[in-house]
Amino acid sequence: MAETKHSFAVGIDIGGTTTKFGIVDSNGVILEQSRIPTNQHENASDFIEELYRILKPMIDRQGGEKNFVGVGVGAPNGNYYSGTIEYAPNLKWKGIIPMASLMQEKFGLPTKLTNDANAAAVGEMMYGCAKGMKHFITITLGTGVGSGIVIDGKILLGHDGFAGELGHTIIRHGGRIHKGTGVKGTLEAYASATGVRETAIEFLTQEPNADSLLRNYSIDELTSQTVYECAIQGDRIANKIFEFTGTILGEALANFIMFSSPEAIVLFGGLTNAGDLILNPTIQSMEANLIQVFKNKVKVMFSNLKEADAAILGASALVWDNK
Amino acid sequence: MAETKHSFAVGIDIGGTTTKFGIVDSNGVILEQSRIPTNQHENASDFIEELYRILKPMIDRQGGEKNFVGVGVGAPNGNYYSGTIEYAPNLKWKGIIPMASLMQEKFGLPTKLTNDANAAAVGEMMYGCAKGMKHFITITLGTGVGSGIVIDGKILLGHDGFAGELGHTIIRHGGRIHKGTGVKGTLEAYASATGVRETAIEFLTQEPNADSLLRNYSIDELTSQTVYECAIQGDRIANKIFEFTGTILGEALANFIMFSSPEAIVLFGGLTNAGDLILNPTIQSMEANLIQVFKNKVKVMFSNLKEADAAILGASALVWDNK
Repeated sequence: MAETKHSFAVGIDIGGTTTKFGIVDSNGVILEQSRIPTNQHENASDFIEELYRILKPMIDRQGGEKNFVGVGVGAPNGNYYSGTIEYAPNLKWKGIIPMASLMQEKFGLPTKLTNDANAAAVGEMMYGCAKGMKHFITITLGTGVGSGIVIDGKILLGHDGFAGELGHTIIRHGGRIHKGTGVKGTLEAYASATGVRETAIEFLTQEPNADSLLRNYSIDELTSQTVYECAIQGDRIANKIFEFTGTILGEALANFIMFSSPEAIVLFGGLTNAGDLILNPTIQSMEANLIQVFKNKVKVMFSNLKEADAAILGASALVWDNK
Repeated sequence: MAETKHSFAVGIDIGGTTTKFGIVDSNGVILEQSRIPTNQHENASDFIEELYRILKPMIDRQGGEKNFVGVGVGAPNGNYYSGTIEYAPNLKWKGIIPMASLMQEKFGLPTKLTNDANAAAVGEMMYGCAKGMKHFITITLGTGVGSGIVIDGKILLGHDGFAGELGHTIIRHGGRIHKGTGVKGTLEAYASATGVRETAIEFLTQEPNADSLLRNYSIDELTSQTVYECAIQGDRIANKIFEFTGTILGEALANFIMFSSPEAIVLFGGLTNAGDLILNPTIQSMEANLIQVFKNKVKVMFSNLKEADAAILGASALVWDNK
């Protein structure tokens, strides 16, 4: 690909909070990158205007549009087939947004869009620890829980382009309600940063008389990071929070394995900063819930890409075929 | 295919209780079929001897081996890649059985093997109500719960050939223990004939003073069939059993949809004899647990193939490529 005259791609990762973007060359090197908040614009066109304002000079520094193969976009509820974002619970723009055509019009470049978690999975497959794997699943443990499923070396899109919404699968019947969807007991309500915070509040309330370093923080300060800091100091309740979270995540991973029999599951996102505190109970619970044929076979690993990089690289990879 | 000199295939479906088999022509017509009990032989070679004894005359009636493209086999825990049956909880033969090579040796014909539920899904795709579909899931609601997942027109095998064990996914954390696997709360423990029977016993025990037609049957006579017969006579507890079963099955289907986004889910097996009594609560619960993008999109249908036919046809379809 390095020999073609289109040597660069734009990669854009639209997240619930932040949109990260950059210029990627055909070797998967991010030459420049930046970010803007996602939800500050009332409508998608204004958001694209601001993106363009920052990206246009970056494009020009690489010789202008003629050197670009296109724009690849990862977005929550992004649909590869239609190029639209549909009913994304975490975004301000409601209904169906024709994001790819709006961008294509503004940038004057071919634009492809997919689910943000799918883009990250492509990034892992091309540049990360899933390089060379044909069957794997990536799970993003961030503010929410995203997923990208790779089968036979291709992102699983499904009949209508929306496959891979594993954060919304039910793992605790009748459990916590998800504020965005109204569904009870979904993985995202537990194994996300938001979920860990909620677990912390629950556990502290359940044991009002138990000492815990977590009580030194206000409710607003309780995050997966502060829980981690208390846990490594040996705090019992903080450790129990990660065990609980890992137990639920492990059960969900067992379910996913019995669906698609992957070689590996790649975890990334903020919660993975907790390292073994989250990984050990996850693997233990996963193995305990697998049937014989799957036991001790499936690798569970942390991504070795920086989160923003995986998403930008994966998004840009969507358009390399256009060269 | 009708023009080739190999005009016939043997299709064999090894089930937990019964093995069904037949001679299939290249148009998907089953010319002859028969069945034997699966678990009456101490070892797999004796089982194959008996199969051969019945099949050999059938093969000869179509002009002998030279007219046959091969033998296709569906079996519980069957692995397409290796041709082995591995640790099947419902079979007498333990460990890893090299079924495809044993059959190939005995029959002198190329033999391919896959999971029995996968074979049934191939049957649905080629000859049943999933004809022309690229993305669908079949769920067998029989003694156990089997599944075959089709993605982009191909059976999902996964990294090691064991994908699609949806009956073993967990849907009720801490629920009923599965006697074969030791895992708690799996779909098979509820949405199978065995599960319905267990639910019946549970409900009758929970309400010892409630009248029910089900009390006219001994515990041994309580089957999904007798529960159905009581339900259509308006028995409250019998109806509650199907509602409970459908609610759990519907939640599980929602999870599967959020994984692979299929066009349809095809149900077959004994439980589907209950018709709307099982279908209505299943669809209602499924829709209630889907996120917006999947709602009112995915068809849930009963197979229009006879169960034995789907499995034999699907198994035979494995070897048509060999022509």
